[in-house]
Amino acid sequence: MNSSVSPAGSRHLLSLRDSTRASLDALLIRAQAFAEGHYDSRALAGIAVCTLFFEPSTRTRLSFQLAAQQLGAHVLNFDASTSSTSKGETALDTLKNIEAMGVRGFVIRHREDGAVAALAEQAREGTCLVNAGDGRSAHPTQGLLDMLTLRQAKGADFSALRVALIGDVKHSRVARSDLQALRALGAGEIRVCGPASLLPDDGTLDGCVVTQDFDAALDGVDAVMMLRLQRERMEEGLVASLDDYHRDYGLTATRLRRAAADAVVMHPGPMNRGVEITDEVADGPQSLILTQVANGVAVRMAVLETLLKG
Amino acid sequence: MNSSVSPAGSRHLLSLRDSTRASLDALLIRAQAFAEGHYDSRALAGIAVCTLFFEPSTRTRLSFQLAAQQLGAHVLNFDASTSSTSKGETALDTLKNIEAMGVRGFVIRHREDGAVAALAEQAREGTCLVNAGDGRSAHPTQGLLDMLTLRQAKGADFSALRVALIGDVKHSRVARSDLQALRALGAGEIRVCGPASLLPDDGTLDGCVVTQDFDAALDGVDAVMMLRLQRERMEEGLVASLDDYHRDYGLTATRLRRAAADAVVMHPGPMNRGVEITDEVADGPQSLILTQVANGVAVRMAVLETLLKG
Amino acid sequence: MNSSVSPAGSRHLLSLRDSTRASLDALLIRAQAFAEGHYDSRALAGIAVCTLFFEPSTRTRLSFQLAAQQLGAHVLNFDASTSSTSKGETALDTLKNIEAMGVRGFVIRHREDGAVAALAEQAREGTCLVNAGDGRSAHPTQGLLDMLTLRQAKGADFSALRVALIGDVKHSRVARSDLQALRALGAGEIRVCGPASLLPDDGTLDGCVVTQDFDAALDGVDAVMMLRLQRERMEEGLVASLDDYHRDYGLTATRLRRAAADAVVMHPGPMNRGVEITDEVADGPQSLILTQVANGVAVRMAVLETLLKG
Repeated sequence: MNSSVSPAGSRHLLSLRDSTRASLDALLIRAQAFAEGHYDSRALAGIAVCTLFFEPSTRTRLSFQLAAQQLGAHVLNFDASTSSTSKGETALDTLKNIEAMGVRGFVIRHREDGAVAALAEQAREGTCLVNAGDGRSAHPTQGLLDMLTLRQAKGADFSALRVALIGDVKHSRVARSDLQALRALGAGEIRVCGPASLLPDDGTLDGCVVTQDFDAALDGVDAVMMLRLQRERMEEGLVASLDDYHRDYGLTATRLRRAAADAVVMHPGPMNRGVEITDEVADGPQSLILTQVANGVAVRMAVLETLLKG
Repeated sequence: MNSSVSPAGSRHLLSLRDSTRASLDALLIRAQAFAEGHYDSRALAGIAVCTLFFEPSTRTRLSFQLAAQQLGAHVLNFDASTSSTSKGETALDTLKNIEAMGVRGFVIRHREDGAVAALAEQAREGTCLVNAGDGRSAHPTQGLLDMLTLRQAKGADFSALRVALIGDVKHSRVARSDLQALRALGAGEIRVCGPASLLPDDGTLDGCVVTQDFDAALDGVDAVMMLRLQRERMEEGLVASLDDYHRDYGLTATRLRRAAADAVVMHPGPMNRGVEITDEVADGPQSLILTQVANGVAVRMAVLETLLKG
Repeated sequence: MNSSVSPAGSRHLLSLRDSTRASLDALLIRAQAFAEGHYDSRALAGIAVCTLFFEPSTRTRLSFQLAAQQLGAHVLNFDASTSSTSKGETALDTLKNIEAMGVRGFVIRHREDGAVAALAEQAREGTCLVNAGDGRSAHPTQGLLDMLTLRQAKGADFSALRVALIGDVKHSRVARSDLQALRALGAGEIRVCGPASLLPDDGTLDGCVVTQDFDAALDGVDAVMMLRLQRERMEEGLVASLDDYHRDYGLTATRLRRAAADAVVMHPGPMNRGVEITDEVADGPQSLILTQVANGVAVRMAVLETLLKG
């Protein structure tokens, strides 16, 4: 990807870490056009894209698949859990093989931090990798679709925007990509809230207002971005119980009233209804959760087109 | 779907319960044209269709997939057994998510009676659901393809047609859809035959001639529609043994001679060869079993086109 | 397939057993054009191809899938391990069913020797089967892609070519197809090398120079074709240990120096790096392993086009 998203000259989308406001804006403007249905259904004709998921995620895979199909690409799906990786082949050999078939675009999800970047270093000229989530590190298209959703709701200027990011930030690649994008776009105030056990202390939260008080975090914000609570966190002893978590960090209609009257609610899905969010909020008038999903396709079209045609 | 198949104004195909003869005839005439190869391969260009199977069925899924592809649709496949439903997401959230991506057509199979209708109530304007089988309730495209097959073999006027439906009617969504369609099309006589343990007493058989005597059921009929015997029926004690079942309700060449000389034999597949049907009959000159499969694609094209373009 | 590949008049590609030099040359010339990007992306428009894998192999399936897509075919994938074959349906019923849907091309992999040929005997007029690997018998498109790779590297005239085939020839369908193709193309000298326990004594090696001395086998050859060592061979007691195997039959850079200076190295993948081949060789300048993968798509396009259009 050119400098419009990633570090200048890169042809991959690995994270939003070094993105500039200008590069993100350009991509979001392109995605907005796609969201409105303006696209060339032959833009990627003759180009093959492969989803390569070492960790399963049907929804993200479908979103990328539809994005690629709508631009006319050939789409292949490689589910690494049922493949010859079970014959001991490495992720790199798998990538090199499919690349050798003539596939130019790869949408890769991997359990390990940095796995996609490591593969990108070995990819040949002309191959484009999109990180569809690696470990706890990055999920850049989720970050982008969240920004597109905020932009549609609140305008392109984020300088007065107050955003609260709630929940298990520590283990969330979504949170990391959101934070990077919000900073690049100059969000006015970023509040981060969750139990201490689920907040990172590695610099991820630099510049954010950090609190464990959900009510305080919500006070007057324009957008509430909820995160999914993985059930593993209980087994790991990081969360006492779902009930406790819901009491302290579950977004209810009552709590939401602390935010600005026109605050929007977002969640990357899949939701644990009744845990981090109630049905009333998830399906309520302030929820943009399904808009996020719709924007996911548009953003992925923009990313694939920019990388593979650009 | 408009009134040509379902209750007036519906944009879904959930069952054939309230279908009219006129609506079925219109759809079958359209399907016949598709079966003869007359179709616009761009009819659904730019429209996305997702198969959403909460119960596996490769053959039905492939048939719908091919139908959609042949009309130029984008096709996504969601296998709910390996998806984020395992993360606790509900069927409804799954549907709403994929719908939000811009997918307009859904082909849904579910283990529970009424599950597809329940989803249809929550679908947004413009979304079309096709029931690809729910519990024991309905499998409307199977009913339609069976009617198309009978129509090709015996003509459009069913008023003199004598049809025998044999086997496990109680647990069969195919049987229910067939019976609804046969009634709507005014079939002359519908005989239903099977062991008492496998015949429903819920009104499903109203108006049918019901018997446990297979020979009597076959006497002079124009069409024999066999049903699959699920092996679970033995574990449930509803059937003593496969041998007994075959002796009493297995269609053999000898038995078939009781039907009209030009009687046709049908089976929805997959067959238990040697149980409900012998190889000699399944592969014999009166068998239309593979014609049913061929008609399945044509009927599904007609349904998808009518719902999504109509 | 017509006489250009298989026995005259056949419309299937089951093995390379009776192929003539002329027929192979014709197909390889066609494949070479595809490899160079010269193809009609609508050549198979409206034609449906189904991959039907009774034994999993993601890479081979993707290669065929991309080949079919690039020629404009509709592609269906049937993974027989998760399908109604689990309901007791036979491979033949599965084939007949999908064939009845109107699918014309089948790409079939099966665990049993001769399984694809047996299915071919039952296929209807107009259906074309491609053997994508059956038991230990044949993997003809692998044989063809290997020949295309040799042809590109060493020219169309194989009469002076010295080739060494190394490893578990006994259990390898790749080896059998390679040997048949090399003989048909008149390869100057074919050396076969491996432990006695892994060499067949069934006539497969007729006309080959057979040795257990890897160094001797390599001496001055123009091409080294390595085979994958299946780990099962150890459990079966046919190989003592991976370390022993590597010492005796692993291709290292040192050993490779015994071959001609411009010798090429091939492997059908997936590789056991460190066992039959070292990283240095696999990724070295003489390796054509990724070229083989690229040629796989071109060869499969040529086969599908020849069978389905020819």
